[in-house]
Amino acid sequence: MQGLMQDYPLTLPHFFHRAERLFPKKHVATNTPGGIERITYGEWADRTRRLGAVLEALGVSPDGRVGSFAWNTARHLELYFAVPCTGRVLHTLNLRLFPADLTYIINHAEDEVIFADRSVAALLAPLLPELTTVKHIVIMDDGKGDVPDDPRIVDYEKLMADAKPVEFNVTDENQAGSMMYTSGTTGKPKGVVYSHRSMWLHTMAVMVHDVLGVSEVDTILPVVPMFHANCWGLAHAAVASGANLVMPGADLSPPTLVDLMVSEKVTMAAGVPTIWMGVLPLLAGRDLSSITKVLCGGSAVPKSLSEGFREAIGVPITQAWGMTETSPIASTGHIKSYLQESMSIDELADQRATVGLIAPGVEFRVVEPGTVSPLPWDGVTSGELQVAGPWIVRDYYNHPGSQESFTPDGWLRTGDVAVVDDEGYIKLVDRTKDLVKSGGEWISSVELENEIMAHPKVAEAAVIGIAHPKWDERPIACVVIKAGEELTKDEVLDHLRPRVAKWWLPDDVVFIDEVPKTSVGKFSKKTLREKFVDYTLPTA
Amino acid sequence: MQGLMQDYPLTLPHFFHRAERLFPKKHVATNTPGGIERITYGEWADRTRRLGAVLEALGVSPDGRVGSFAWNTARHLELYFAVPCTGRVLHTLNLRLFPADLTYIINHAEDEVIFADRSVAALLAPLLPELTTVKHIVIMDDGKGDVPDDPRIVDYEKLMADAKPVEFNVTDENQAGSMMYTSGTTGKPKGVVYSHRSMWLHTMAVMVHDVLGVSEVDTILPVVPMFHANCWGLAHAAVASGANLVMPGADLSPPTLVDLMVSEKVTMAAGVPTIWMGVLPLLAGRDLSSITKVLCGGSAVPKSLSEGFREAIGVPITQAWGMTETSPIASTGHIKSYLQESMSIDELADQRATVGLIAPGVEFRVVEPGTVSPLPWDGVTSGELQVAGPWIVRDYYNHPGSQESFTPDGWLRTGDVAVVDDEGYIKLVDRTKDLVKSGGEWISSVELENEIMAHPKVAEAAVIGIAHPKWDERPIACVVIKAGEELTKDEVLDHLRPRVAKWWLPDDVVFIDEVPKTSVGKFSKKTLREKFVDYTLPTA
Repeated sequence: MQGLMQDYPLTLPHFFHRAERLFPKKHVATNTPGGIERITYGEWADRTRRLGAVLEALGVSPDGRVGSFAWNTARHLELYFAVPCTGRVLHTLNLRLFPADLTYIINHAEDEVIFADRSVAALLAPLLPELTTVKHIVIMDDGKGDVPDDPRIVDYEKLMADAKPVEFNVTDENQAGSMMYTSGTTGKPKGVVYSHRSMWLHTMAVMVHDVLGVSEVDTILPVVPMFHANCWGLAHAAVASGANLVMPGADLSPPTLVDLMVSEKVTMAAGVPTIWMGVLPLLAGRDLSSITKVLCGGSAVPKSLSEGFREAIGVPITQAWGMTETSPIASTGHIKSYLQESMSIDELADQRATVGLIAPGVEFRVVEPGTVSPLPWDGVTSGELQVAGPWIVRDYYNHPGSQESFTPDGWLRTGDVAVVDDEGYIKLVDRTKDLVKSGGEWISSVELENEIMAHPKVAEAAVIGIAHPKWDERPIACVVIKAGEELTKDEVLDHLRPRVAKWWLPDDVVFIDEVPKTSVGKFSKKTLREKFVDYTLPTA
Repeated sequence: MQGLMQDYPLTLPHFFHRAERLFPKKHVATNTPGGIERITYGEWADRTRRLGAVLEALGVSPDGRVGSFAWNTARHLELYFAVPCTGRVLHTLNLRLFPADLTYIINHAEDEVIFADRSVAALLAPLLPELTTVKHIVIMDDGKGDVPDDPRIVDYEKLMADAKPVEFNVTDENQAGSMMYTSGTTGKPKGVVYSHRSMWLHTMAVMVHDVLGVSEVDTILPVVPMFHANCWGLAHAAVASGANLVMPGADLSPPTLVDLMVSEKVTMAAGVPTIWMGVLPLLAGRDLSSITKVLCGGSAVPKSLSEGFREAIGVPITQAWGMTETSPIASTGHIKSYLQESMSIDELADQRATVGLIAPGVEFRVVEPGTVSPLPWDGVTSGELQVAGPWIVRDYYNHPGSQESFTPDGWLRTGDVAVVDDEGYIKLVDRTKDLVKSGGEWISSVELENEIMAHPKVAEAAVIGIAHPKWDERPIACVVIKAGEELTKDEVLDHLRPRVAKWWLPDDVVFIDEVPKTSVGKFSKKTLREKFVDYTLPTA
């Protein structure tokens, strides 16, 4: 027996229409070199409809890919809706990609037009001769930067000036709406293609009280880029709920971010740990009473960072976990009511060091790699985290050989190693490929790094496995000493001895100037391993 | 181009598994004649799985209809999930239906088994000879009442004792999961059939911050029956979010409700206006500091009632609007942040007297009846409220001739007359069929009733249209005087004169003992009109 409810498609124009009709007085503020530019959702909606006409005028195919190469700005938000709401597919390009990868993904996605901020256009222009499908680059003037001279380069505002608003209507909820490529620590970047349905459902989840709880009363500062991990769904949810947005533009320096938080009375801000590490020392003496949520994800959040925020502004960091492949919100750090009541301050801080509870809409299991059998929720047994749900990817775009990322029953293998406590909180302990396999047992490089980084003289630390004739692999620690401090190998090992199992102790400690980072700011173990390709263990 | 996200079905087992795995320590408290009975979601989940085996043992067809004839209890919540999660369809029966309607809908839905509370079993037993498809009545012992002697009658707990837990898995999101019949002010009751998809999406919406914002931190008292309007989605959302539930059972008396709110530290309670009118005088001196939301819907909420709550406990009433046909949550009274900041206390009270903003997921328009062209949002122009969305009904169950309830483009004609203000807030002014058509113009019976009920000596008032040779129809007011008071026709008309247009003044005022009510407690204009079928206007 079938239900008798309307066959109403879950597509993005629904949320666009909400902002346009219900919240035309709310606004998007964009920070620019010339100061704050503020437009209302009413003005934004009109411009977004006109952008629909621009896409038509540029001759973009009905389901053509439209690249964006831009910071978080109101214009980028126009692209976020105009492209999918006219049936096309927005392809957000990571500003920090290496040129070869950028060329590869633009050609692979067959982008027909790329909308680029003027401040970064110079990064894109040299690639033009190799971009086989790109007919135009549209420059969005964000205040500075050189515009290369090329007949294919046109100006956003000139195109918009003549454009008439169009109607938005998408009826197939499984149609693609946007795509982004994962930075790919191995092999070629892989394209994740979001459907209208997945974005619609993810947007609802982001507005769910215990997930992120985005509300009309919020003023949201997404420091997390719109070109990375779907901006954690905040751009879509702000439009759907009528929340104000504060777009930081190109300047992500901690002092500027703090100024924005104060002057715009931000309630909710989201960024990676390094952002909040930079912001924390600047909070003293500032009025941040408007803040209700500081969201953090992308890599492990040190307990000291979260507690630092709690002590400085009364609001601890809320962790969220996800990946580009999971839209990205898969879990968030809601603390259950009875834990809030019964736990000590320190226990609560430990609980917040997990990535929280799985979001409604997502299923997860932690399994012995190579199986699909869930491991016990005992807070100790670790295994690979796998997820399923309507906003989880089922395949990569035209990428043969990607079946290794999925289980036989269709779940995503996240590559994260996790333990689950008896309350269902997920704690990430490593990436599967970053585990050090020693004598048939696993050593968690992330746990070792966290312990080493707790040393007051350590700025950063990364642990990698080095081939060993007897043990298969043994860990070495690559340590960055804080400026002005001195530290020895023995001091590091002495610090670790009471904190980890004896056989986890690194076979060597190497001091380096900095830990190499990926294009999205994470530790690049791949680059680090390449650096140590000729290194021989003292114990080998 | 299609998206590449998982084809993950939106079905109810997902939410069941959340409560079972993530919130097994949270609880459902049921008020019974013997006191509070409390079971955890862990115990509830085990019982719900065993109920799945009971349905199998009773021989219910794979998609068979299973009736419930019960108060709000933990057992009713077992049915709410066990029936749809085994692929069957829960048919909640309204305890207050007239016997002929009850017989009609049970036979029309072809219920195979009915689960009935012992306290109401005696209402059902006399119908047994006419129930052509019912094989068993399963008695759920709620503390009192006679169990008729009939071989088809069996005991819930005896069946459960032997049952082994079953697995839940539903893969088709468009499959039916539950159904309820509308009370039907004209003609036969009409069946609304919810799909798993519609209930899944509606549950997510109910958890969205600005809709109802149901959270794990909540303790929810649904006074609204589980057999009416899908319990406003609160039963499903509590399970999905891990909120505690307080089930009032058979005793809905105001003193008992207030006691429950205090002793169970209820945060969110939901009921119709008459419930809160009874509760309001009992709030003084009680500790209701746990309350964060008092939800009200079903009929117009007098401003004085909402303000009474605000003054008594610091929390005004939040209105919600919907119908059985809309799952039911279609709009809720979120007040926009800038209105909160700029409006006076009295203006805010007026804003709360609307039914609020349309929920994300629902589209609405107010049109001149007979058209699909939206009327302006000017706060004045009224028309028929029509809605569309994934949890709005598209047709009634096996009910020929129901196309009059839908527009040519498939939207639901709600039968409500509404105006919309320039902020998008919807205000209901009448039911289309209760409008009085006088001289080609409409008179709102609801507005007249509200004005009359504002008179300090009036307990209740209902306005109906009476045939008139010249004007087509003219209004008369049927007024119930407060106990111990006296009131004349002229006093009522004098009270109205400065408040309504002269041509709206009723042609007569008739004093009655009470306004007849429907099975769900609303004014039954149909019954009132029947009473006045032989009445002749003094002006005719």
